[in-house]
Amino acid sequence: MVKIIQEESALTPQSPRQLLLDNYSRVRHFTEQLCAPLVVEDYVIQSMPDVSPTRWHLAHTSWFFETFLLEPNVPDYISPHPQYAYLFNSYYNSVGERHCRPKRGLISRPTVQEIYAYRQYVDECISNFLTACSQEHLDKITPIVTLGIHHEQQHQELIITDIKHVLSCNPLHPTYLERTIGPSQPPPPLEWISYPEELAWIGYDKDGFAYDNEGPRHREFVDAYQLGSRLITNAEYLQFIKDGGYQNPLLWLSSGWSTVQAEQWRAPLYWEQHDGHWMIMTLSGLCEVEPAEPVCHVSYYEADAYARWANARLATEAEWELATRQLPVEGNFVENQTFHPIPLTTQASSTQPAQMYGDVWEWTQSAYLPYRGYKPAAGALGEYNGKFMCNQFVLRGGSCATSITHIRPTYRNFFPPDARWQFTGVRLAREV
Amino acid sequence: MVKIIQEESALTPQSPRQLLLDNYSRVRHFTEQLCAPLVVEDYVIQSMPDVSPTRWHLAHTSWFFETFLLEPNVPDYISPHPQYAYLFNSYYNSVGERHCRPKRGLISRPTVQEIYAYRQYVDECISNFLTACSQEHLDKITPIVTLGIHHEQQHQELIITDIKHVLSCNPLHPTYLERTIGPSQPPPPLEWISYPEELAWIGYDKDGFAYDNEGPRHREFVDAYQLGSRLITNAEYLQFIKDGGYQNPLLWLSSGWSTVQAEQWRAPLYWEQHDGHWMIMTLSGLCEVEPAEPVCHVSYYEADAYARWANARLATEAEWELATRQLPVEGNFVENQTFHPIPLTTQASSTQPAQMYGDVWEWTQSAYLPYRGYKPAAGALGEYNGKFMCNQFVLRGGSCATSITHIRPTYRNFFPPDARWQFTGVRLAREV
Amino acid sequence: MVKIIQEESALTPQSPRQLLLDNYSRVRHFTEQLCAPLVVEDYVIQSMPDVSPTRWHLAHTSWFFETFLLEPNVPDYISPHPQYAYLFNSYYNSVGERHCRPKRGLISRPTVQEIYAYRQYVDECISNFLTACSQEHLDKITPIVTLGIHHEQQHQELIITDIKHVLSCNPLHPTYLERTIGPSQPPPPLEWISYPEELAWIGYDKDGFAYDNEGPRHREFVDAYQLGSRLITNAEYLQFIKDGGYQNPLLWLSSGWSTVQAEQWRAPLYWEQHDGHWMIMTLSGLCEVEPAEPVCHVSYYEADAYARWANARLATEAEWELATRQLPVEGNFVENQTFHPIPLTTQASSTQPAQMYGDVWEWTQSAYLPYRGYKPAAGALGEYNGKFMCNQFVLRGGSCATSITHIRPTYRNFFPPDARWQFTGVRLAREV
Amino acid sequence: MVKIIQEESALTPQSPRQLLLDNYSRVRHFTEQLCAPLVVEDYVIQSMPDVSPTRWHLAHTSWFFETFLLEPNVPDYISPHPQYAYLFNSYYNSVGERHCRPKRGLISRPTVQEIYAYRQYVDECISNFLTACSQEHLDKITPIVTLGIHHEQQHQELIITDIKHVLSCNPLHPTYLERTIGPSQPPPPLEWISYPEELAWIGYDKDGFAYDNEGPRHREFVDAYQLGSRLITNAEYLQFIKDGGYQNPLLWLSSGWSTVQAEQWRAPLYWEQHDGHWMIMTLSGLCEVEPAEPVCHVSYYEADAYARWANARLATEAEWELATRQLPVEGNFVENQTFHPIPLTTQASSTQPAQMYGDVWEWTQSAYLPYRGYKPAAGALGEYNGKFMCNQFVLRGGSCATSITHIRPTYRNFFPPDARWQFTGVRLAREV
Repeated sequence: MVKIIQEESALTPQSPRQLLLDNYSRVRHFTEQLCAPLVVEDYVIQSMPDVSPTRWHLAHTSWFFETFLLEPNVPDYISPHPQYAYLFNSYYNSVGERHCRPKRGLISRPTVQEIYAYRQYVDECISNFLTACSQEHLDKITPIVTLGIHHEQQHQELIITDIKHVLSCNPLHPTYLERTIGPSQPPPPLEWISYPEELAWIGYDKDGFAYDNEGPRHREFVDAYQLGSRLITNAEYLQFIKDGGYQNPLLWLSSGWSTVQAEQWRAPLYWEQHDGHWMIMTLSGLCEVEPAEPVCHVSYYEADAYARWANARLATEAEWELATRQLPVEGNFVENQTFHPIPLTTQASSTQPAQMYGDVWEWTQSAYLPYRGYKPAAGALGEYNGKFMCNQFVLRGGSCATSITHIRPTYRNFFPPDARWQFTGVRLAREV
Repeated sequence: MVKIIQEESALTPQSPRQLLLDNYSRVRHFTEQLCAPLVVEDYVIQSMPDVSPTRWHLAHTSWFFETFLLEPNVPDYISPHPQYAYLFNSYYNSVGERHCRPKRGLISRPTVQEIYAYRQYVDECISNFLTACSQEHLDKITPIVTLGIHHEQQHQELIITDIKHVLSCNPLHPTYLERTIGPSQPPPPLEWISYPEELAWIGYDKDGFAYDNEGPRHREFVDAYQLGSRLITNAEYLQFIKDGGYQNPLLWLSSGWSTVQAEQWRAPLYWEQHDGHWMIMTLSGLCEVEPAEPVCHVSYYEADAYARWANARLATEAEWELATRQLPVEGNFVENQTFHPIPLTTQASSTQPAQMYGDVWEWTQSAYLPYRGYKPAAGALGEYNGKFMCNQFVLRGGSCATSITHIRPTYRNFFPPDARWQFTGVRLAREV
Repeated sequence: MVKIIQEESALTPQSPRQLLLDNYSRVRHFTEQLCAPLVVEDYVIQSMPDVSPTRWHLAHTSWFFETFLLEPNVPDYISPHPQYAYLFNSYYNSVGERHCRPKRGLISRPTVQEIYAYRQYVDECISNFLTACSQEHLDKITPIVTLGIHHEQQHQELIITDIKHVLSCNPLHPTYLERTIGPSQPPPPLEWISYPEELAWIGYDKDGFAYDNEGPRHREFVDAYQLGSRLITNAEYLQFIKDGGYQNPLLWLSSGWSTVQAEQWRAPLYWEQHDGHWMIMTLSGLCEVEPAEPVCHVSYYEADAYARWANARLATEAEWELATRQLPVEGNFVENQTFHPIPLTTQASSTQPAQMYGDVWEWTQSAYLPYRGYKPAAGALGEYNGKFMCNQFVLRGGSCATSITHIRPTYRNFFPPDARWQFTGVRLAREV
Repeated sequence: MVKIIQEESALTPQSPRQLLLDNYSRVRHFTEQLCAPLVVEDYVIQSMPDVSPTRWHLAHTSWFFETFLLEPNVPDYISPHPQYAYLFNSYYNSVGERHCRPKRGLISRPTVQEIYAYRQYVDECISNFLTACSQEHLDKITPIVTLGIHHEQQHQELIITDIKHVLSCNPLHPTYLERTIGPSQPPPPLEWISYPEELAWIGYDKDGFAYDNEGPRHREFVDAYQLGSRLITNAEYLQFIKDGGYQNPLLWLSSGWSTVQAEQWRAPLYWEQHDGHWMIMTLSGLCEVEPAEPVCHVSYYEADAYARWANARLATEAEWELATRQLPVEGNFVENQTFHPIPLTTQASSTQPAQMYGDVWEWTQSAYLPYRGYKPAAGALGEYNGKFMCNQFVLRGGSCATSITHIRPTYRNFFPPDARWQFTGVRLAREV
């Protein structure tokens, strides 16, 4: 078994320049640590259009730094592989033609080794540049470096979720990483935590990094509401299945029901029924479904249908954000190296919901739309978020594949309502 | 030319029972008047899955009254054609199996004549029942009759939009109804009307009929905003086309751009370029594009891209509703029998926007989602609205195919962002 | 019930000119008689891409005479509807652009009545022309008139098979024509009739009309073989079904097995299982499967799989032709107005196979390819046959939807191996 | 550059047992030599459903020996990886469930290294078994070993054609093997070689190995005909292109023309137009189109259309076989390591056609059908050929990717008429 360790930053005070450099190096290095358990063959496969091959993620994130940092800022910068731009641009129309997304799995060269060399080259150039540039230049480009670091972290999460999907296509059930799982206790009962009505400020308050879609900060009127004290578990979701949840159209959105029929969904993604009991494909192999774990790999359609079955609803993103703004960012993140949601062990508080961060992204009932007054960033980086504001739903809180340094109360993740390959789960809400 | 006339209700005071009966008869009769210009062959065709054959609309609306009114309320009611339930149920899972929607155009029997006889039978039963039932019973079922009447009106609009699509598939360009169009004047220039910030009550205030999706009435905080004083015209939209609007991915939502590419959109639906200038297929035949008319048959993607190109945005549905709540319901509706949007002739006011009602449905930037506390109606009628609250956008104000008696300030229409066969257009909004 | 009668030609001797005129009129009239049981709505529907609406067949055959006879030969001929050429050209690239085949069901105008008027106009022009033209001109165009008549007869068969498919899509099971079916006797047992090896002449011997694909006459060496004495019956085919024929991949061609899986075939087309026993959709409504009837509406894949299961094979087209060249053309043809295959009642002969003509087209194991030295006819009519010589199999003998005056020993019909909507059945062959 | 060498068998006389062993080892070893130029990433990709990943070919051929030789014959044989059977069965329904063909490219494990170890294990077991088994046993299993060797050779050809397709999907145009190409001379002019009519014996005469589809030997009558003296060249095919061959529907079979339109074919596969002149993707990189080379990577549709344009036709497989039965098996085969067809340099003979073997498979106009009296082999090996006898055309003569020891005059290769990724070309024939 390959051991994955993410070094903690040193405790001694550091200059902002040094901090940026360290942060850059640590995050870039962590990407490669996440790939350590893979064999070369794993890096190549695109198991569905939404999934990208690991080798593509490794190259794309390097291309991102090359394109948005090195080329505009390092006068004599020469890309060692200018033709990579065509292969590893994801969706930036502003910076030229690109290879068709669903065909990323048809490309074997550059090889994995060559891509690691490309990464190393970019890292050295960035490192040299960050070390040597003027303070003024550093101030100017720090936001782009920071964006690139967060972009890298998003792809770290995708590396994990995508390789899980790739391995799931193999009937031999290969594992990414062995993991010992002990017996678990049932979680505390679900309780309801109440919040008063409020004309609230929502969105990014300019403290620390945020994506453009988290602002502008603006007012929303939020009625009184209640949130479930913890995530919905496999045991609870099994009740929904046993009660015929997947057979009853009245529980589903119309397009959700069509999807259930067309895809023949009968359980969350990665669940398989063997001899009448449910197994689950994890990054540590095929396991029994653990009742106490948060249910995971459900679509918005399933989360919404479950909530309706349970006489509840999903939270709005404003409700989620208000309930979370005072909570510490802690939970089961990628640094834990479980790569899987884990049962809640602490006693639930009657005033604070548990598991708001980590484990699974929580589907909200909010469509992913621009906040009032939203303006995309100028230039190509303006294509980062805004153009996806259609037919997607917002998720909040991060997952077991998210870095603890990547998440915050205002963070808006988004996926279409039928997406299931991310670590996505259910928290209930209801009217008072 | 067949003349379509909708009789006005008499001016003498009437009993509520008589008013309901009259209203029922008038609306049902109007449906048939709308079909008068059609030949039997026209009634049969389903030109795409979204479109239903005219014969289906005629039968489905009758099935609706039979299923939700006659069968539960008239003890000895016997359907003359119980097998129609399978053919003419649209999407009510609660009331049994149904024929597959995309196959509605594969059915030739019952014939058009038989369907008219079925309508007449249902109408007589309804009429007898409404005349004879007790006042108590009448009070109980009045909401269902009223819902059925509004449902009928929705299908009147679909009859018009669907037959337009059917006729558009014919390279011979047949016409539905001749119409004389005189020369038109350019509309007044577009101005901006300002509205202050407000913690506003939104939604149905329990005065008159409304669908369940228009409530509950609830508070929303709305920042100060501006609305365009009139609809965007063909002349303005042509500027967008000429400026390369359909070739510039940076103006489009990502899924919108994919649609533009896949469908090779270059102009609104029903526009055709002949010898370098634009023609437009209308229900009165192929015409020159009239610059002063409101642009019509654009998708949400196009409305959104146009707004971005114009340095503006679409309104939210709350903004639209607040601006409209004091305006009289008047405009170019189906009763005008133009079946096409018409140029604005009155001078625009600096305080009141024009064309808020009629002509074209106005795309808003609001996803179609439940209002806080929304509960679908009980029983099968609860499938009317709520289950479509996903991946659709709200439209407001009605169109030239909507009845003036069907629209109101809180009315929420909804279509997916790529839909173009409805009479849909553009009104701009912006931040102050 | 509408009665269909095909008038016999008079017995008095006639001039060739009069014979041609009579033949033309009789065949054209018979087309319309076949449509007599239909309602207008039936004429419009295209239930799958292979099917054409009845109205299209009626117009296309008239366009054929107009394009290939009137326009080149009648100097002052003016089409009343020149725009029909675009709508009603089937596949003749030589004569211009045409409407897309799968969209024939999207067109409601010209109406059925207008199409009948168009037919009548063409018929009058043809009649006038054939009556008045010089003998020399008549000699020149007689082959084209004759081709047009045979073309018309092919479309008569398609009108029957296509409307059967259209009506089959209606869950109400409408009927085309009532028919009384009495009890039937089991057919005589299947025997094997032997034929010696032969270096044989195959193909059209220039006696009477033939399509270009029936020649040139040429030699083929045919080994000794045996033919089944009659067609395979429903009773025999049911044995194949009960023996798991549709579940055993080893009986099927590879592409046949893929089709069985993809289309979920479990029986011939138009068979439906109700409460455990098999019903069959006919043009006279839904009936019990009659054991003594020839099995019908099977694809080449099914005919081939059945033959393999029965330790036999299908005949080659040469074998079929040699066995048939001396037999009289008689059987259950469209003139019988059964529109369905019927049980064999005569005793089978030990030297002559029964049912070689009529009832069902017999799949052969011969791919549809050009005979050695084949040259398509010159001009547009050369597109009639040759360009389809790929991925189709030859069928022989005509069916209950074929005219007795249309069939002959050398006639080569052809369909792809997965086609089932024609009246197609099974005759076995084997090595000696 | 990696050097590929195929060792010649020793000249000293050998026992049949030793010859079989040597042959087995040499062919198995040659497969691995063909893979030597590949990087691990190349082995994984399935670029379209027809293509299999190299790793799959390597494993499947080993599974074939394991399943059909080791398991039935070596009593204590234990597969080291019984689960491979599911992954590496191609299409043998008789031997169990198998992984879906189009998903072969979604599997990364077993790794390439593990597959080589599996090959080595199978090779050792086969070698031990062939060395130690009784003579009687050897006699019994020699046909299966021989079949397995020929099966291996077929997959060698597929490894070459499939990896060419994989590399062609990469916009960076990677090369498989460098190759120096000198200037070439125009080939001798095309002449016509005449053959008399003949009642001929066709098919396998039981001398040496053949697949079951090459028999039974039987008589066919073949009219007098002429064959082109050499293959059609790129220069000749360019004339067809320049003459509008791809724009003229009258030259094409109907389904061919549909394919041209749907796939937007404008030239053979792997041709790309750069700045107005044609380039061609080869296994040695992107080159100018060499006029003297045989045209390659054309479908049956293109070969047929070219022949029609040239006032000729393709040969039947009987014609081809009769013309070739006396010719020595020599030509440009895989052992030449050009992996590409090469210009004809020898003077064409007026009595013997050149290039009948090697360079490119020659499309015939014969559909791939069973010879009279054909019976598939018993058991699973009976699935090898017969079940594909539908909608495919026969090709003859082998290509630059075929082994010289694999081809013979009666060899029947077959592909669907739209297949282009094999090395397929054009030889003309015509009536005398």
